[in-house]
Amino acid sequence: MIRTSTLALAAMALAACAAETPRTSGLATNQSADQLFVPSVQPTGFDKTLSSAREAVDAAMAAPIAVPVPKDAGGGYTHEKHKDNARLIFNAGALYRFTGEEKYASFVADLLEEYATVYPNWGQHPAKKEQSPGRMFWQNLNESWWLVHAAQGYESIHGTLSEEQREHIEANLLRNMSDFLSEGSPETFNKVHNHGTWATAAVGITGYAIGDDAYVEKALLGLDLSGEGGFLRQMDVLFSPDGYYNEGPYYQRYALMPFVLFAKYIEQNEPEREIFEVRDGILKKAIESTIHQNYGGLFFPINDALKDKGIATTELLHGVAIAYDLTGDPGLLSIAEAQGKFVLTPESKKVADAIAAGKSKPFDYRSMRLLDGQGGTEGALDILRVSDDPDDQALVMKHTSQGLGHGHFDKLGMLYYDNGNEILRDYGAARFLNIEAKYGGHYLPENNLYAKQTIAHNTLVVDETSHFNGKTATGNKFAPELGPFITTTNLQLSSAKTSDAYPGTELSRKTAIIRDAAFARPVIIDIVQAKSSGSHQYDLPFHYNGQLIDTNFEISADSQSRSPLGEKNGYQYIWKTGQAEPVNDLSQLTFLLDDRFYTLSTATPDNTTILLAETGANDPNFNLRREPALVLRAEKVSDASFVTVIESHGEYDPTLEFTVNSHSSVASVSHREETGYDRVDILSKAGQTVTLLLADSNEEFETTDASGNSIKWQGPAHLLNSQ
Amino acid sequence: MIRTSTLALAAMALAACAAETPRTSGLATNQSADQLFVPSVQPTGFDKTLSSAREAVDAAMAAPIAVPVPKDAGGGYTHEKHKDNARLIFNAGALYRFTGEEKYASFVADLLEEYATVYPNWGQHPAKKEQSPGRMFWQNLNESWWLVHAAQGYESIHGTLSEEQREHIEANLLRNMSDFLSEGSPETFNKVHNHGTWATAAVGITGYAIGDDAYVEKALLGLDLSGEGGFLRQMDVLFSPDGYYNEGPYYQRYALMPFVLFAKYIEQNEPEREIFEVRDGILKKAIESTIHQNYGGLFFPINDALKDKGIATTELLHGVAIAYDLTGDPGLLSIAEAQGKFVLTPESKKVADAIAAGKSKPFDYRSMRLLDGQGGTEGALDILRVSDDPDDQALVMKHTSQGLGHGHFDKLGMLYYDNGNEILRDYGAARFLNIEAKYGGHYLPENNLYAKQTIAHNTLVVDETSHFNGKTATGNKFAPELGPFITTTNLQLSSAKTSDAYPGTELSRKTAIIRDAAFARPVIIDIVQAKSSGSHQYDLPFHYNGQLIDTNFEISADSQSRSPLGEKNGYQYIWKTGQAEPVNDLSQLTFLLDDRFYTLSTATPDNTTILLAETGANDPNFNLRREPALVLRAEKVSDASFVTVIESHGEYDPTLEFTVNSHSSVASVSHREETGYDRVDILSKAGQTVTLLLADSNEEFETTDASGNSIKWQGPAHLLNSQ
Repeated sequence: MIRTSTLALAAMALAACAAETPRTSGLATNQSADQLFVPSVQPTGFDKTLSSAREAVDAAMAAPIAVPVPKDAGGGYTHEKHKDNARLIFNAGALYRFTGEEKYASFVADLLEEYATVYPNWGQHPAKKEQSPGRMFWQNLNESWWLVHAAQGYESIHGTLSEEQREHIEANLLRNMSDFLSEGSPETFNKVHNHGTWATAAVGITGYAIGDDAYVEKALLGLDLSGEGGFLRQMDVLFSPDGYYNEGPYYQRYALMPFVLFAKYIEQNEPEREIFEVRDGILKKAIESTIHQNYGGLFFPINDALKDKGIATTELLHGVAIAYDLTGDPGLLSIAEAQGKFVLTPESKKVADAIAAGKSKPFDYRSMRLLDGQGGTEGALDILRVSDDPDDQALVMKHTSQGLGHGHFDKLGMLYYDNGNEILRDYGAARFLNIEAKYGGHYLPENNLYAKQTIAHNTLVVDETSHFNGKTATGNKFAPELGPFITTTNLQLSSAKTSDAYPGTELSRKTAIIRDAAFARPVIIDIVQAKSSGSHQYDLPFHYNGQLIDTNFEISADSQSRSPLGEKNGYQYIWKTGQAEPVNDLSQLTFLLDDRFYTLSTATPDNTTILLAETGANDPNFNLRREPALVLRAEKVSDASFVTVIESHGEYDPTLEFTVNSHSSVASVSHREETGYDRVDILSKAGQTVTLLLADSNEEFETTDASGNSIKWQGPAHLLNSQ
Repeated sequence: MIRTSTLALAAMALAACAAETPRTSGLATNQSADQLFVPSVQPTGFDKTLSSAREAVDAAMAAPIAVPVPKDAGGGYTHEKHKDNARLIFNAGALYRFTGEEKYASFVADLLEEYATVYPNWGQHPAKKEQSPGRMFWQNLNESWWLVHAAQGYESIHGTLSEEQREHIEANLLRNMSDFLSEGSPETFNKVHNHGTWATAAVGITGYAIGDDAYVEKALLGLDLSGEGGFLRQMDVLFSPDGYYNEGPYYQRYALMPFVLFAKYIEQNEPEREIFEVRDGILKKAIESTIHQNYGGLFFPINDALKDKGIATTELLHGVAIAYDLTGDPGLLSIAEAQGKFVLTPESKKVADAIAAGKSKPFDYRSMRLLDGQGGTEGALDILRVSDDPDDQALVMKHTSQGLGHGHFDKLGMLYYDNGNEILRDYGAARFLNIEAKYGGHYLPENNLYAKQTIAHNTLVVDETSHFNGKTATGNKFAPELGPFITTTNLQLSSAKTSDAYPGTELSRKTAIIRDAAFARPVIIDIVQAKSSGSHQYDLPFHYNGQLIDTNFEISADSQSRSPLGEKNGYQYIWKTGQAEPVNDLSQLTFLLDDRFYTLSTATPDNTTILLAETGANDPNFNLRREPALVLRAEKVSDASFVTVIESHGEYDPTLEFTVNSHSSVASVSHREETGYDRVDILSKAGQTVTLLLADSNEEFETTDASGNSIKWQGPAHLLNSQ
């Protein structure tokens, strides 16, 4: 095992000039010493991070060290204090590396020695969680997080310590904690799960930091060194071949951090493992796919997700910096610019320098199908983007597997974005993180009772019951069957179906983005179908974001009193605010958000009632946001198809006082099931007809266009543009 | 009368190199020719404006000229086309001035000749409004606006025309239209009102452009040259001595444009009038007071106001540029930076150049009392700011007069801002400007029925009836009586009272901002009092912006059904969503907006019920936004005082996952009316007491502080900080 690359060693020797040569290079990869010491002419983002870290650490150094006896659960004083101390150890260590100022090394040493003195005496945490209890924290996940930071801090300053200091810190803190997290917590350490990744990363990084191969080996291969558990196995299992993490981007971001940090150490210490090339570069793919899963800087809020989490989280600051270090992809620099924040690592400094040198290029946002499941066989997250402009129209189709315990019951669900905004949205998680007054900051009861339920999503609900009857265990067994995925310029398509969400009923969805001269911007054509032998009620909700402007139907509004839309499965949290009958089987609703108009024009099935709705019923604690929805309800039918054209149109400028194209261009929408294919004709108000043809096979078909001419085309999809 | 300053003449001679020397200097004040022609090294904001104007004008020049026969009302084709043409005439004229390219001059000439050919034959507009009909437009206000632009365009290119062309355009268009707007529309032209300002500005600018003193004199002095009407009289009457316009900032912005444009022409042509020094510099004050009346770039939305209108409107682009040209105040440059847009005038170019030269300084945002009324005797708009940071806490107290037909019934109303956001807000106008589907883009019925009513504002409602019984004519007669206004560092105060809003009941409000060590940020102390001989119901609404987080009272929520809060005077548009009883006469409600918490802690009167509410009842057309409110209701009392402490506290960071100070620091609030003064004691949860003493006079008083020590102090206000 090669402990440190020669180049990195040399760099470190120069960098940590006042210190002995550290054994490892965690903070110095691809970094020459003069770069570490020469301040930039114009302060870069990294320089600002360094300055503010210096201020924070200097302030902490002026106060007495506090290492309290563990007492509080998450959010409490001792919990937060230990977290603060870990950040101080990491940051002060980095400050020593970047500035060479001894005082930072001594501060890290003081903190670590203090911990080493008390840690061995700490038994299980008094407020321990039942599963995976910790000693410093209520759960050992936090303890792993702590050690990841402390081991790096130790490594940064270890060369400045006396032999006695090293012995004290290593034996009583680093080894003691590593032993606890590995041999002492086998159920977590061996688990192929993100908690296991945190544990193996903590123990592995510690192994490199103290120069003990045994810890590294256990971290990589599991306690019994069989490879059935451990980091390498986690890399094989936890991401799909496309780098998708099955709980979705919100948790992917969190799971990513120990992967990329430990991998960085592996790369620096054992480059012969080519860790970043394993599984066709799965870690780089995981970082990139995390980035692709954002709009407006925020992650697609599928499954349990706080909607304000996005690419600027610490995890992805590390991820982007390490990926740039590996790939040199200038598109990552524009992501770093959007993040606007940096971490105290050489990789992050390199990113800031490259940005300052003007090397940034736009990130290559594009349409993609991210296969789900270890083998890529459990559905997919389809992302369709109209252009590489991150604020342009985008569709996210949730054709993934359930997403385990944090998964929502939203098979074939849709998110639609435009103009930097959520337009058709997902509620996300019902939770106020860390806000004690709101159910202690935990997931609210409304998370399971409303946010996870199917009606809270833009997908079909049968008989007011959620997919898989709201059972996660059932949901975990099934993934949708993927249909064609197309990304040509004028026609993009995402499609999938499932017969598992409701036994006896097949649901399918084909969602296209087309470009045609009849419309100023690309438009969405969304075909949602249900086929069943029995008679059902089918509800298709569109949770739209904006102010209702116009409808083509007459609303009978619940304007003097209101009652909930239903009694269970999430319906009880929604007020019915009005209802209507479709006109000529076409339901059109126009709303305004910021400076744009959006129209949903749906060709509705027989027996359809239009419902207008708003979240917030049965909410005595005011836990829910108030958001409007359109619900199209077809009753007492066995088969139903809802074909919706979604237009982004016009402009509203209250400053210059003009409004253009506030009306939909759609005059009618018709859908016919022909033999072997679906046909959708859209007639524009200007009299143009656009025809979309979608087949389940690659066969050749023949049909007539709007002018009556016979046209041959090949499946799975064809667009007859208007003339 | 001096037509053109010598310096400006010389500059223009150089500038319009291919043309004859124009007679006036409208586009060349303080501008030397080389500045006009030398492109900036880095394109300034002005350069970008010029480029995009060039693109737009070039595109228009490639299409045939269209001067349609007047037919449509506002928003229709002929209406919009004539507006477009006026902008083209202005912009193409400016392009000729700035670039010297003849093609722009010919285009202006072509357009003006076309209009000159057809305009004399146009009688009254077929869709004319009853009052002040136009010929090209349905109302002559639009015609004045058109001529303001066309006269400037003519002036820009007039030197390039043949004698015949000039004769044709001047006689058949400019004089014809000026005659129509002056002698032909005396009721508007002589009116001391902003429509009159547009008319006189149009005629006056035309007079300068064609060199005819008679038009200028009429514009300045009215048709009979008596000075009882006309521009100079309007300057005397329409603004208060502090530059406040009695309809509020939304209309002030609109009224401002003809004032500053015509005044610029007067200054250039007749500098001996010292027009910008008239009435102690009233026009400069009007521009500055308009700027001061914004938060987050948007005007305070008092009275009928679209909430998305702000400092970036065209009117204020001209206003800021002209003010900077006059004063050189570098604080105006930061306003121009915030505007981010420019107009094609030399003054706007000068602003862009100064910004590019790094001359910008922060604008001097500060607390101020803007007296209302021609003589400054009709109340005031009080603005209290915590600092000159435009995103810091700010209070707006509406102690003004009614504000005429666009005025709302919100005597003693309050707006509170913080962190760049509206926190306690005003609904503004109920209107979707130019959105035809929403009541033709006009003010909605809900504007009079809800938005203007007292309950829609943060001020006291007696017996569910609006101020002045909702009668504008009554409201116009009265203004509040102002009390002390204080702007010291640790204590700021706005105060006023009125006995006119409800005959027989005196309402008063004293609102302070204090700084004290007991609170991390300055806090508001708001005392609302009613005194009456009879027994009444007093409702104090707080229309808060954010997610309800916590209350100190137990809410009995209307969570299974909802009904309106009342039946009339705006109450019918509000859902009751819950109610509660105060605990120990203290009502505390905490809400979250973005990353901050806000708590309203009110010491409530006897017989108080707490109501939770939300707009949107009786809204079958979905015309209203959904906004929450807290309504404190005291029933069957004659006197009542509501003393509210408003705290901005803590921080919520979902990215770094921490929350601090999410709880209020207030333990209790007590209010006592002592002889000659009010005493408010706030006890913090940490046990500190802060005491605010407010008297109606400047007398000396004696009281005891929280420690029992006797303290002497002098009215009108004194703060006993916590120890």
